Amino acid sequence: MAPHPWIEAFAPATVSNLGPGFDCLGLALRGPGDTVRARTADVPGVRLLRVSGDAGKLPLASDRNTAAVAVQQLLRHHAPEAGIELELTKGLPLGSGLGSSGASACAAVVAADAALGLNLGATHLIEAAREGERVACGAAHPDNVAPAILGGLVLIPSLHPLRVVALPVPTDLWLAVYTPGHPVATEQARAILPHNYPLPTVVHQAARLGLLVHALHTDDLALLGEAMVDEVAEPARAGLIPGFLAAKAACLEAGAVACTISGAGPSTFAIAPSRERATALLEILEECFTGAGVAGRGHVDTVGPGARVVSAPLH
Amino acid sequence: MAPHPWIEAFAPATVSNLGPGFDCLGLALRGPGDTVRARTADVPGVRLLRVSGDAGKLPLASDRNTAAVAVQQLLRHHAPEAGIELELTKGLPLGSGLGSSGASACAAVVAADAALGLNLGATHLIEAAREGERVACGAAHPDNVAPAILGGLVLIPSLHPLRVVALPVPTDLWLAVYTPGHPVATEQARAILPHNYPLPTVVHQAARLGLLVHALHTDDLALLGEAMVDEVAEPARAGLIPGFLAAKAACLEAGAVACTISGAGPSTFAIAPSRERATALLEILEECFTGAGVAGRGHVDTVGPGARVVSAPLH
Repeated sequence: MAPHPWIEAFAPATVSNLGPGFDCLGLALRGPGDTVRARTADVPGVRLLRVSGDAGKLPLASDRNTAAVAVQQLLRHHAPEAGIELELTKGLPLGSGLGSSGASACAAVVAADAALGLNLGATHLIEAAREGERVACGAAHPDNVAPAILGGLVLIPSLHPLRVVALPVPTDLWLAVYTPGHPVATEQARAILPHNYPLPTVVHQAARLGLLVHALHTDDLALLGEAMVDEVAEPARAGLIPGFLAAKAACLEAGAVACTISGAGPSTFAIAPSRERATALLEILEECFTGAGVAGRGHVDTVGPGARVVSAPLH
Repeated sequence: MAPHPWIEAFAPATVSNLGPGFDCLGLALRGPGDTVRARTADVPGVRLLRVSGDAGKLPLASDRNTAAVAVQQLLRHHAPEAGIELELTKGLPLGSGLGSSGASACAAVVAADAALGLNLGATHLIEAAREGERVACGAAHPDNVAPAILGGLVLIPSLHPLRVVALPVPTDLWLAVYTPGHPVATEQARAILPHNYPLPTVVHQAARLGLLVHALHTDDLALLGEAMVDEVAEPARAGLIPGFLAAKAACLEAGAVACTISGAGPSTFAIAPSRERATALLEILEECFTGAGVAGRGHVDTVGPGARVVSAPLH
């Protein structure tokens, strides 16, 4: 019997937190991402056949790889008898704070959904993908997988039950994204956070997230910059990323709308109202992190669409 | 010499916090409020000549009455040589959680501003009025005076420097507002709050305020209801208001969009999409608080405009 045809899906890198949106806000980048091929198999369950682009660092075991775990979760709820084979091509660096594990999980569930013809809605896909996050980061936080599935800018107001809300994307929002050559483990970045926060911090964080949502609805980048101040995660995590504070100061000095850590870091991004300004900020980030001894790589990007099937066999 | 003419201003009651917007969100009611008459005087400084409608409870001393302190602040910054006489007519009950002291301060600064022909902008008026709040509640929180000046729904994303943002008001937003006969001192309601909050509470509060702002921009009352959950102040303050929890449960059971405490309490409000539904909720509030032995009074209202001059002499 001829093997079943492969279906390939792509899921984008994501920037989460965005200042005051710790654990509840993220956006999908237009540029890089992970790709997963899926095909149905006659043997029930999930088998991850191959991972490339990870320099051999990721596990193939289907209970330890985020892509395989996400698809297992999908099958458990929506196709318990089905079998799926997967091949994962990493386009994103690991431990970068750009939602690398989330992109793998999302590409995998979108490819598997298409291969099985399930046509599940976004919430089901996010629910499955976030279980992949659990093995990758120890918690099923959906602030990367929700924007990776939906695209755009996404608020997650509730985890149980999962609620996701697509927010408006400003007309001219450019990001300079730089990943210093100094990996940060998500678990470490989480463990370093204080357990408790004083009342004024609670008020500031909420008020700024309210302002941020208002800035998005009014397409006001200056207001967005004003809102993108984080008193919760950034102060604790800044010390994990050599050169971050200097890079942030230099970007703001150069007129960046905002500059903060993406997710758990070390990736750092600055926002600008044009490609030219973002390109200038990328040079500043490059210079600062290189000066701090943690040269890495970066690119200029915009907000983009969510995970999608990119090649399917013709019938 | 004929005395200078009186100018009369009105400032509305306000509902602050609105669930997740503790200390940073409030709205102006259309209905009740305080009225202040002001006239210029030849002797510099502020003299409060008369207070009515307060059953003799408010101080006349110009360093202790919120209206007089607010106008003193106004003069200090904008007319240091001027003299102002005031008369305050309370339309709002004291210690109700409906921004009673803030309404006095706002009516006073608007009347004084008009009497002096200063024509100050809203931010200056709010800055002066919040100093009145300091003597009334021990802190210059602007979450009542900002909506009392601006009207509508107001977010206060920053205190230093003061920033206020007018948010969209939903098309059909009706409030059943009930003030149980059981005053709560603002200081007590503040002292009862925990000093520290765990990280998930910080995240929930911010995410819900983000959702609330999104609900306002999309004119979505159901989403507004989903957003109006407060894990910060309401759990601690509920115990200060006999009957609150039962009243809230009964309102939600009857289909209220939301039901929570206004400001420091004890006023409790429920939101509905029509006057009829709000009237039904008001009856429920009346019944529950009467049953709890703290009968008071209430009314149905909508969001209204801010403080304004209501009568000025013809020239």
